[in-house]
Amino acid sequence: MSQAANDYIRTHSARFLEELKEFIRIPSISTLPENAGDVARAAQFVADSLKAAGLENIEIIPTERHPLVYADWLHAPSKPTVLCYGHYDVQPPDPLELWLSPPFEPTIRDGNLYARGSADDKGQMYMHVKAIETLFAVHGTLPLNVKFIVEGEEEVGGASITKYVAANQAKLQADVALVSDTSLYADGVPTLCTGLRGLVYMEVEASGPARDLHSGLYGGAAPNAVYGLIELLGKAKDADGRILIPGFYDAVAEPDAAELASWKSLPFSEEEFLAKEVGSSCLTGEPGRMVLERVWSRPTLEVHGIAGGFTGAGAKTVIPATATAKVSMRMAPNQDPGQVYQLFADWVAAHTPAGIHTQVRRLSGGPAVVVSTSHPAIHTAAEAAKDVMGRECVFIRSGGSVPIVGDFAAHLGIPTVMMGFGLPDDGLHSPNEKFKLDNFYTGTMTIAHFFEKYGC
Amino acid sequence: MSQAANDYIRTHSARFLEELKEFIRIPSISTLPENAGDVARAAQFVADSLKAAGLENIEIIPTERHPLVYADWLHAPSKPTVLCYGHYDVQPPDPLELWLSPPFEPTIRDGNLYARGSADDKGQMYMHVKAIETLFAVHGTLPLNVKFIVEGEEEVGGASITKYVAANQAKLQADVALVSDTSLYADGVPTLCTGLRGLVYMEVEASGPARDLHSGLYGGAAPNAVYGLIELLGKAKDADGRILIPGFYDAVAEPDAAELASWKSLPFSEEEFLAKEVGSSCLTGEPGRMVLERVWSRPTLEVHGIAGGFTGAGAKTVIPATATAKVSMRMAPNQDPGQVYQLFADWVAAHTPAGIHTQVRRLSGGPAVVVSTSHPAIHTAAEAAKDVMGRECVFIRSGGSVPIVGDFAAHLGIPTVMMGFGLPDDGLHSPNEKFKLDNFYTGTMTIAHFFEKYGC
Repeated sequence: MSQAANDYIRTHSARFLEELKEFIRIPSISTLPENAGDVARAAQFVADSLKAAGLENIEIIPTERHPLVYADWLHAPSKPTVLCYGHYDVQPPDPLELWLSPPFEPTIRDGNLYARGSADDKGQMYMHVKAIETLFAVHGTLPLNVKFIVEGEEEVGGASITKYVAANQAKLQADVALVSDTSLYADGVPTLCTGLRGLVYMEVEASGPARDLHSGLYGGAAPNAVYGLIELLGKAKDADGRILIPGFYDAVAEPDAAELASWKSLPFSEEEFLAKEVGSSCLTGEPGRMVLERVWSRPTLEVHGIAGGFTGAGAKTVIPATATAKVSMRMAPNQDPGQVYQLFADWVAAHTPAGIHTQVRRLSGGPAVVVSTSHPAIHTAAEAAKDVMGRECVFIRSGGSVPIVGDFAAHLGIPTVMMGFGLPDDGLHSPNEKFKLDNFYTGTMTIAHFFEKYGC
Repeated sequence: MSQAANDYIRTHSARFLEELKEFIRIPSISTLPENAGDVARAAQFVADSLKAAGLENIEIIPTERHPLVYADWLHAPSKPTVLCYGHYDVQPPDPLELWLSPPFEPTIRDGNLYARGSADDKGQMYMHVKAIETLFAVHGTLPLNVKFIVEGEEEVGGASITKYVAANQAKLQADVALVSDTSLYADGVPTLCTGLRGLVYMEVEASGPARDLHSGLYGGAAPNAVYGLIELLGKAKDADGRILIPGFYDAVAEPDAAELASWKSLPFSEEEFLAKEVGSSCLTGEPGRMVLERVWSRPTLEVHGIAGGFTGAGAKTVIPATATAKVSMRMAPNQDPGQVYQLFADWVAAHTPAGIHTQVRRLSGGPAVVVSTSHPAIHTAAEAAKDVMGRECVFIRSGGSVPIVGDFAAHLGIPTVMMGFGLPDDGLHSPNEKFKLDNFYTGTMTIAHFFEKYGC
């Protein structure tokens, strides 16, 4: 670990914070058309920051929606190349009345920086920028090659970057990607995320009668589209949550024994998870699988809602003609989204109740991603985190999806180091989003150290 | 059949129609606050019409919402008393753009009177008024005693009349009630409705996690309130639609053999019912039960909709914290609404999936009603209809509910002659509601003749 880098970061910590605050004050809400100008300003801020840090070939790349920002420094020919990714757009701040301080006026309370985007992802991507500045400042050069690609559509689906990555494979080619958009397992615990579940999101549309019918006049002889969906989807899982679609589990790759063992060694209280995070009367899911396994590496089937029929106040005796369910399946590593979709669609066709017609539409899908803990970049990142934070690094997974990681794997053929410094209670997408200031500096040091170590 | 009465009705048919049109032009939409004045005007119109017809003791009775109109004529001491019921309020006319002529400007096309309220129920209740006028005109007196109770809240739940009937049993006491708010089985077929299914309407509320959760982070371990309801309600019926709640069918009274035989003799095409009315790929329901039995005398369970979770456009990966299903059960004669509710609530409690908490709320409920075809009033009404229309009267039921009929049975202990002259395609509650003019006159004649015959 370079003491010089750490000293530089400590010395300049107040300025780093002021710069980050300036960045955060730009309300770059990508989903709201009225904030398009702010999103553009944020892109310019990123470009300026990358230039100021010492990077070259700065580009603000227009897209169909919000611009991408590119920069690189490629003067270490025998060294590896790291592709740094982040996003400068944020979620809307609603509900405003729940914020204790204004969402776009960064405010420090109890060592935390409260603001929309503080952790997701402005504060985290800014660590990458400040790590670069630090390395240039203390070494006059960089220990490896870096490319930056920063997007402004992460909170609205990320369509532009997906296209850009697919179309610019040579330009973005690297040995590994670095994404800081995840959390530490717990405060003070150096953490790398080594896997994400895949996701297939579908709509199942059911139709029964040609029009809504009166249940008094037709009830008993006419099919009901809402009940048809209920009858169908109710058969998709057994009481333990095991998915009953034939062949569904065939391709599922299990975590290896070492990974499972490391999950077992993580501090995790099922009681606390139930009481503080979930809040139901009990947890559910496959018996014999520990909770972290169920949410990190096991596939799921969820129904997110059913539209159709009558759901207002009071009573209406309608037999609905149509109904649509939102259904998603999280996928384990090695499951193919196309095949999982087809298994589900075939099962729906085979189990649709009499009198009901169903159709399954796939809205989106991407496979699970896993990186090996023995990959040199992952190994080095873990060592760097241990060096800076003074504890052995833990390897976790996330049950959610980070589509860009799949894009990097699919189009560039590279793994991603997912090293984030948020905390589980940072309140991403919620009022009073925060980023612990210490972790902003620790993260910047860790990333600088990872670059030093991976380039040496 | 009194030729004099029929002649009078024919002679005055043009005036009857003009009066009815005047009644219909009052937009007495009971659900809209801005039409409250119109509703009051319609009540006044009814009161004036009853007075002009020759009735006495006219009252406009204020209620918490819209007034009731009462009138009587009680000068036939040894004769039976008939309690005539109708309603002067109507449904809103939306969607306006689908009407071929203005909803409150009655217009004749192809022998039909098109307007909101033409069949439901202004035209039908006005037959009662004109039958009274006719009998006074041709006989100088009435052949029996009559009471009229006409409400203005039928389309908004009828709360006021239910209270009034319960509180004024002596005043409303009669031998039989007469309600013309149903249809002929087919045009030209004299029809009496002898039974209605009961209805219990419920909400089932399910809760799982304390708040909506991200399905990536919690999917596999957290219960899903929408899926919990699906899992639960999907078990309520077998693939044939038979309800699987223990004890549910125990109290069900079957129609007697004669009634069943008469239903079998009705002109009914299952193919036509499927193609023209239901429009699904096939009909559903209990095997071995004919369609008319399934919709008229068999109990049902329907889910009208599920609120909760995400049902908008696109994809949102939420594990819903709460969900509410609207569930109703149509009841066969002899089933008790309180008991059916309890059986359902107990079944829900016993079958609620792990991690889900459920609560069943009863929104409304009323038992089925049946009248015996051998009751003197029913028998006489059937004879009167046969005399006027020249064909044997058919006895049908309706799978829907007419709460006032249950109120009369419960509070006054009397059966109801349900003799309506609408047609199945009159479009009640829909744009271009109509009432066939011939049936307005035929109905008036039939009702006058029923009074003559029942009073002789």
